[in-house]
Amino acid sequence: MYNLIKLKDCTQSFVMLAMEVTIMERFDIAVIGTGPAGLEAAITAKVRNKSVLLLGNKGSSDKVSKAHTIQNYLGLPNIPGEDMAKAFLDHATSMGVEITEDKVNAVYSMGDYFALQCHNGDYEASSVIVAAGMTAMKPFPGEMENLGRGVSYCATCDAALYKGRTAIILAYSEEDEEEAEFLAERADAVTYLPQYDYSGNLGGNITVVNDIKPQSIESKDGKYQLLTDKDTFEADGVFILRQQIAPSQLVPGLTMDGNHIKVDRSMATNIKGLFACGDITGAPYQYIKAAGEGNVAALSAVSYLAELKKNS
Amino acid sequence: MYNLIKLKDCTQSFVMLAMEVTIMERFDIAVIGTGPAGLEAAITAKVRNKSVLLLGNKGSSDKVSKAHTIQNYLGLPNIPGEDMAKAFLDHATSMGVEITEDKVNAVYSMGDYFALQCHNGDYEASSVIVAAGMTAMKPFPGEMENLGRGVSYCATCDAALYKGRTAIILAYSEEDEEEAEFLAERADAVTYLPQYDYSGNLGGNITVVNDIKPQSIESKDGKYQLLTDKDTFEADGVFILRQQIAPSQLVPGLTMDGNHIKVDRSMATNIKGLFACGDITGAPYQYIKAAGEGNVAALSAVSYLAELKKNS
Repeated sequence: MYNLIKLKDCTQSFVMLAMEVTIMERFDIAVIGTGPAGLEAAITAKVRNKSVLLLGNKGSSDKVSKAHTIQNYLGLPNIPGEDMAKAFLDHATSMGVEITEDKVNAVYSMGDYFALQCHNGDYEASSVIVAAGMTAMKPFPGEMENLGRGVSYCATCDAALYKGRTAIILAYSEEDEEEAEFLAERADAVTYLPQYDYSGNLGGNITVVNDIKPQSIESKDGKYQLLTDKDTFEADGVFILRQQIAPSQLVPGLTMDGNHIKVDRSMATNIKGLFACGDITGAPYQYIKAAGEGNVAALSAVSYLAELKKNS
Repeated sequence: MYNLIKLKDCTQSFVMLAMEVTIMERFDIAVIGTGPAGLEAAITAKVRNKSVLLLGNKGSSDKVSKAHTIQNYLGLPNIPGEDMAKAFLDHATSMGVEITEDKVNAVYSMGDYFALQCHNGDYEASSVIVAAGMTAMKPFPGEMENLGRGVSYCATCDAALYKGRTAIILAYSEEDEEEAEFLAERADAVTYLPQYDYSGNLGGNITVVNDIKPQSIESKDGKYQLLTDKDTFEADGVFILRQQIAPSQLVPGLTMDGNHIKVDRSMATNIKGLFACGDITGAPYQYIKAAGEGNVAALSAVSYLAELKKNS
């Protein structure tokens, strides 16, 4: 397949786009998320001898590691979140499950496989398990309407398009500072609006404005305006670098049930070969429920792979 | 409510039936089964401050304690079944969850509560969670047709009806020997057919016949015949003391999906206030899946109780 290669640090400060034929490993199962649902799905897939790409945070999910004490995860009584995260990660490590720290931007069903577009590269997998958790994420008014035009979720992916142009970045974590620097190498000017406790040292053509609460996005005369609780900011594009993308945006065509991915009891979604588990499938938001669903999703993916093999 | 009191060891060797008005404790939630689903349901109910009646085997389920090694119960890597059963039971004990060792014969929906008919007594609960697991149990030909007439699942319950009559007992565990003795105090003659490794010392009017494989039950001239791989046995009634009763027999009116109890994603059955979880709701038969469902069932029962209270 053709793979888009971006050379970040080339001396002439331009983006070289090379179309190169590469042979990409196709994983049996890609698991998105490293909370209890994702980790359980990954270890169950391993037990069943499947190759697994596990994408997410190496420290498990914040919801686990930052929890105070969990009382009702059967077998681990009265356990602090930090210890539970460690127990989960140690279990995964002991079975050879590795975590690839990358952020997924989009998952496309390609018929008999899925293409996963991530920040640091692209991947392929025969089946996908979405275990990305829930954040209380509500899109801004105007966000969805302008997505793919003036609004984007990945600065690294779209940087090439910003030569000689301006951009606004809504940033939600420290790691976004690196994305801002990369974008600023191409763009004329970048306005960086941290939505977290900023203590970085961005400079040059990056203007950092703290304590801004974004309210809505509007398109106006080919430019995009970000309306906030203070000023209105204008640029050629707005990047929203949330830790998590709404599932319906992550996987085009996915049937939702309100904010949750709609699944049946086998954890199957409306897209063949794509499964979901954990908080993202709905309440109760409980660790053991998430882990149980991860197990079911993995075994359903294993059945799907067997069927796929039979029909190929 | 009226409670049927049976005095087992009265000197005149008769059964005294007394109708006595007793005030029975009504539990918030009765949980049937002490495998991962039942234990998780019980601890989650405890966390939510509900009164719990947990009915089952004090040693958790055989399926857990006799398992070799479990690899994919997230957080407890590579754990022998015996250790996992201990971890589960210790967790329950640490939270004050007690196991009542009793066998449930029937669960009746009484409108805003459930009546549980057990071997050692009757109980009441506002909601019920069935987590009784799966056994590869197929009724004998003729069993269902004659149930409640010549076929019964509880010798203790029906003993009073057997004065001057004869009975056959199909026994599946050592504990059934006590039931046989109790029945033999009333009945003229009892034929005891152990379906387990028998090493007891039943005698008197109890005839023990080993190595008999039952095949079917037939009604003939007011008597019941048990056809086996060897002889045909005849008596006034046949008691089948399996460790587990088919869910559809346990709860009259329960909607099944093949051999499994039909549930939705909240673990609700077709009977309001009655939930099911674990292997009994279908494959995959996995510990973490069962525990996850136990959690969901408990929280659904908690919601049901809140609704019940609001409407009362």
